Amino acid sequence: MTTESRTASSATSSAASAATENLTDATTTADPTGPIPVVPGAAPHLDVAQVSEALMGRWADVRHAARERAARPELHRPVDATVAEHRERVFQQLQILVDDDVSRPMLPEHLGGPNDNGGNVAGFEELVVADPSLQIKAGVQWGLYTSAIIQLGSQEQQKAWVPPAMSLETPGAFAMTEIGHGSDVQSLATTATYDPGTEEWVIHTPFRAAWKDFLGNAAIHAKAATLFARLITNGVDHGVHCFYVPVRDADGELLPGVSSEDDGEKGGLNGIDNGRLAFDQVRIPRTNLLNRYGDVAADGTYTSPIESPGRRFFTMLGTLVQGRVSLDGSAIRASELALHIAITYATQRRQFSAADPTQETVLMDYQAHLHRLLPKLAATYAGAFAHEQLLQAYDDVFSGREDDPEAREDLETLAAALKPTSTRLALDTIQEAREACGGAGFMGENQLVGLHQDLDVYATFEGDNTVLLQLVAKRLLSDYTDELKNVDRAGIGRFIAQRAEVLAKRHTPWARLGQSVSDRGNARRAFDSMRDAEFQEEMLADRARVKVEEVALALRGAAKMSPADAAAEVNKHQVEMLDAARAHADLVRWRAFTSGIEALEDEGSRAVLTDVRDLFGLTAINDDLAWFLLSGMISTQRGRQIESDLRRLLWRLRPHVLDLVAAFDVRPGHVRAPIALGAEQDRQDEAAAYFRAQRASSDAPVSEKALRDREKKARRAAQKRAGKR
Amino acid sequence: MTTESRTASSATSSAASAATENLTDATTTADPTGPIPVVPGAAPHLDVAQVSEALMGRWADVRHAARERAARPELHRPVDATVAEHRERVFQQLQILVDDDVSRPMLPEHLGGPNDNGGNVAGFEELVVADPSLQIKAGVQWGLYTSAIIQLGSQEQQKAWVPPAMSLETPGAFAMTEIGHGSDVQSLATTATYDPGTEEWVIHTPFRAAWKDFLGNAAIHAKAATLFARLITNGVDHGVHCFYVPVRDADGELLPGVSSEDDGEKGGLNGIDNGRLAFDQVRIPRTNLLNRYGDVAADGTYTSPIESPGRRFFTMLGTLVQGRVSLDGSAIRASELALHIAITYATQRRQFSAADPTQETVLMDYQAHLHRLLPKLAATYAGAFAHEQLLQAYDDVFSGREDDPEAREDLETLAAALKPTSTRLALDTIQEAREACGGAGFMGENQLVGLHQDLDVYATFEGDNTVLLQLVAKRLLSDYTDELKNVDRAGIGRFIAQRAEVLAKRHTPWARLGQSVSDRGNARRAFDSMRDAEFQEEMLADRARVKVEEVALALRGAAKMSPADAAAEVNKHQVEMLDAARAHADLVRWRAFTSGIEALEDEGSRAVLTDVRDLFGLTAINDDLAWFLLSGMISTQRGRQIESDLRRLLWRLRPHVLDLVAAFDVRPGHVRAPIALGAEQDRQDEAAAYFRAQRASSDAPVSEKALRDREKKARRAAQKRAGKR
Repeated sequence: MTTESRTASSATSSAASAATENLTDATTTADPTGPIPVVPGAAPHLDVAQVSEALMGRWADVRHAARERAARPELHRPVDATVAEHRERVFQQLQILVDDDVSRPMLPEHLGGPNDNGGNVAGFEELVVADPSLQIKAGVQWGLYTSAIIQLGSQEQQKAWVPPAMSLETPGAFAMTEIGHGSDVQSLATTATYDPGTEEWVIHTPFRAAWKDFLGNAAIHAKAATLFARLITNGVDHGVHCFYVPVRDADGELLPGVSSEDDGEKGGLNGIDNGRLAFDQVRIPRTNLLNRYGDVAADGTYTSPIESPGRRFFTMLGTLVQGRVSLDGSAIRASELALHIAITYATQRRQFSAADPTQETVLMDYQAHLHRLLPKLAATYAGAFAHEQLLQAYDDVFSGREDDPEAREDLETLAAALKPTSTRLALDTIQEAREACGGAGFMGENQLVGLHQDLDVYATFEGDNTVLLQLVAKRLLSDYTDELKNVDRAGIGRFIAQRAEVLAKRHTPWARLGQSVSDRGNARRAFDSMRDAEFQEEMLADRARVKVEEVALALRGAAKMSPADAAAEVNKHQVEMLDAARAHADLVRWRAFTSGIEALEDEGSRAVLTDVRDLFGLTAINDDLAWFLLSGMISTQRGRQIESDLRRLLWRLRPHVLDLVAAFDVRPGHVRAPIALGAEQDRQDEAAAYFRAQRASSDAPVSEKALRDREKKARRAAQKRAGKR
Repeated sequence: MTTESRTASSATSSAASAATENLTDATTTADPTGPIPVVPGAAPHLDVAQVSEALMGRWADVRHAARERAARPELHRPVDATVAEHRERVFQQLQILVDDDVSRPMLPEHLGGPNDNGGNVAGFEELVVADPSLQIKAGVQWGLYTSAIIQLGSQEQQKAWVPPAMSLETPGAFAMTEIGHGSDVQSLATTATYDPGTEEWVIHTPFRAAWKDFLGNAAIHAKAATLFARLITNGVDHGVHCFYVPVRDADGELLPGVSSEDDGEKGGLNGIDNGRLAFDQVRIPRTNLLNRYGDVAADGTYTSPIESPGRRFFTMLGTLVQGRVSLDGSAIRASELALHIAITYATQRRQFSAADPTQETVLMDYQAHLHRLLPKLAATYAGAFAHEQLLQAYDDVFSGREDDPEAREDLETLAAALKPTSTRLALDTIQEAREACGGAGFMGENQLVGLHQDLDVYATFEGDNTVLLQLVAKRLLSDYTDELKNVDRAGIGRFIAQRAEVLAKRHTPWARLGQSVSDRGNARRAFDSMRDAEFQEEMLADRARVKVEEVALALRGAAKMSPADAAAEVNKHQVEMLDAARAHADLVRWRAFTSGIEALEDEGSRAVLTDVRDLFGLTAINDDLAWFLLSGMISTQRGRQIESDLRRLLWRLRPHVLDLVAAFDVRPGHVRAPIALGAEQDRQDEAAAYFRAQRASSDAPVSEKALRDREKKARRAAQKRAGKR
């Protein structure tokens, strides 16, 4: 094709660069890729206030107050600040939180608090829209450092160290991670060796990789640390325990034997003074061991209420699940903010048109724009409802209402499944939102780039996402193995055959339905059947189950292998294991979303959110469609239809996008991006007025192209007349 | 499952957290998910030097020199600098480039240069590893501002304005984008109205959305701008043309009528002073219109060598394709740097183990780690070879050797296909690399976060990725329509039927082959057949073709519709169009990679790179597997096998990862990340030595768990003895 012919094809080009000008017209077509006709007046409507309250969940009051707080300018992330300035600013902001008594809900009754763990976490999650550095710095101080004292210390220890921690008299570091070991906490190398002669612990960093690293507060502010080290007494290493270790004096000078290094500039969260700590034979009193799950008598005798060292370790770690819970919530909140900005902008920003400049198409009316943003909106809704379940489970356990080992383990598994899912979603959503806003999205003032920079590390801290998903997969595998325990060895073959038969039977009706619908060519009916909740749940539940089953069956020989061989065997299926864990998280989120909808009273809201839920469910299925096809769970006929069903849902949801975003209740003050605060609309209005005035005026310039078209027409008419003569 | 039973299942747990300790042993198993046995000694080996030269391509000499330059510390990105400091630093760095005469190759002969466009771009691409801000600031000054004068101005204009632009005497802005219009350049609203009375242009910004925005150099350094505005003379708007407009005096003060605003802090590239410019009836001489493609006589008469306004506009824009070409190259180079860092670290960093701490598994030996990094490595190789083809095509056109409208359009389409592909790859690769390095990846000093921040905007500037892919799709559609032109209307039905038949026939042999191989259960043979180059090319080529065909057929009614209806119809297929463009880019990259391998002399290198190419090809197929299954192009049998084939490839490539990265020739100085410069290995060695010494010593602490196991054993033995008695 030459340059000449390119101009000739400009009809296609200009058509291709524009979109549906008139949605109402478009909805009346019966095109299988177009929207399903909606009867005007009968169209459902989202009750924004009701959905908003539903999203706020059990701690709606706390969230309302926290959102007011997060809108206060003095708590906001600075756009252009040096690392030093930002750190100082955030430290001052912590003091504001202290003055407001924000963390009191976390205190147990004997420390004068209401032991309202769920409310406490809910309130902190909301800080992410003020400044993620503030959320995480507060999380370090109270969610980790202070929590460790409360969860792992005796009441006496709590009374000594919690009040100054709460008041920020003692800023503290949570000294768990070392350079050499992050997610593998069991392998930490810092030692705490008991000296019965002086009744002291000797804290020591044996080599460079054992330096504590990435610790918030460590570079500058921390005066003490809750430090995790191997407890050694009488020549026995009892594994990792937590110690209360002063690190700086009242003037902020490092104590003798303590070294600190600054982590310097990071990818984000630069309001936090992350740093390293090392200890050279530092001595602390015997009573500085947080001794709830393990203690040492003056003579060095070790005792613990939990006999098994492995279970003792996991119990101690389990008390710190709150960090993961709150990251899950704040990641969802960050996604909400990003979507609020990008979708608001997309409904005002216009670009390209087939006709004149006053009728350029708003971005949100492009199929590709709906396609890039709405599935993320749907996943954010799913994540929000799932998070509320997680938060309630967390509160049930930590309030003591439902605290047993099984509930604790369920909670830990749920947190391990949701934290990686929501933090991944947040990063992908923020990035998509930033790109969807074009160059404006790259400007610091429009918040999206800063949000991505800050949230980036959420994917790898408080448990690396890959490691957490592997934990989930192990739990699913071990549950599955428990089920199989009663089946004898020979029976396993029969079991597999039966399972295949069950699967085949279960899916035949669906395959047949897909077939018959396709035969009748009734797109509407096919669309409805795919949106059937039972269908989606069955697909997602079976996938989650079958994926675990496949790994379990592939690994059934590993039990008889040497540990090294078994590890090698497991490693050959690691990608599948992670995949199974993700499938599980999809199911959890889908079910939470569905329960959330069922609990709504307003019928219109249920109808709209059911479309959103369907978008979530069908996107999850479509993203893994090859697997469903290969497993025979979805027929070719039905498979061919999913994409067009998804497109339909996008158009159906198009009229509701602003309501759906409004229900997130992202307030002015949370949104500080000028492009989402009316600046774009003002500019569009001003430009449109200019062009209107030009069209009304008689001396506005005429375009060369219009002139040429007119001349061509005149020439042709003249030729015609000449021909007639 | 209770906490109790969790401990019981710790055998599975610890096995799951470790990996193949001994690859040689593992390779001898016949497990279908394991590696294909490699005969020792016969294993192929990558000739790093040869592959490195092949990747450097036609301008290897230039690249060698540019890589030396990019290693110089004075050109490096600062880790912690304020926006103001960074901007000043980069401006000083530009002067270093001037002193080195770095841009001279771009000058045509009549300006005293060699007109070596390819070499010039190759050299600039390499700057990205020094500091992307430097690369882009240089790109603004010489690749855009100066290039516009050379490409769009007369020789007289060039002689006046190019030398001070080259010497940085006149730093310049490239004032194209406006707040209101980025990718849609045709709709720019700034006006340049000719006043025959004074023989001047009056440059004017009619409303806020018409402010020029996001312009490098505009906030501080620019003294002039090549400004795009609607040329209006004698009451006719001749569309967007380029003007040379002084904006600041010698002291850096804005000239009368010119306003400027600072864009402030951005997501990255903060070494560049992006900003806005507006013009209030600013007058410039008639001769400041860059007049190669359009001129105005003293009396205001407009003339142009290109009659059609549309073609004229696209011809002017087409001269600026260089920006996209160089972004493609630098995005690939950035991916290479990210992979170098993450893969080097992954071969030294150890985490989790089934056995003792001195034998923790290196990250690179985890299947999930191979899975997250190697497909990106493969795509980076494909992108590098494809970029070399693009660069040669660019040089062929701009040297004048092969400059005709068709070659220009092919070049523009290739650039529009590759720039979005490589910039997307770079962002995804850098992010994956950063997460794969855990907390260390989040530290500024380890380069990955800064690289992501800087490259972020590559996805939306110099043509938004979505808009560019849509251009590609339109070109593919119009080529396809041209082919169909000779088919009469009634023939289209026959054509569709024939096409289906051809497809069915073409794929039957593959389906049959897949079937028979599966029947025989010979994994090796199935593996080989999937790695067949013909199979991969056929799949990728047919997919690219069929996806265009599907859209073309769906849109065949649009030609007869009103422009608005046609636009609505096209919009209903926008996602499919973008998908077709991506499929085209995959094919282009696969073919470039394959040609690149064929040109290699060393057999070992060809063998290893063929595995990498297969990983690229099969990943592309697997990512779209549902489509291949639904279109009948890949059988269920074969589809089931792809995942395990991909896993095999990962393990086959495992021994070559460091060689594959070494061939990128990322040098010390380019890599400044401590984690990729030996710091991690030193720490690992020190820790390993400590544990060796502990094991050798007699007074090292014994673990409580080991003690308990010993006691248990002793108790059991005692019970046994007691039982015997």
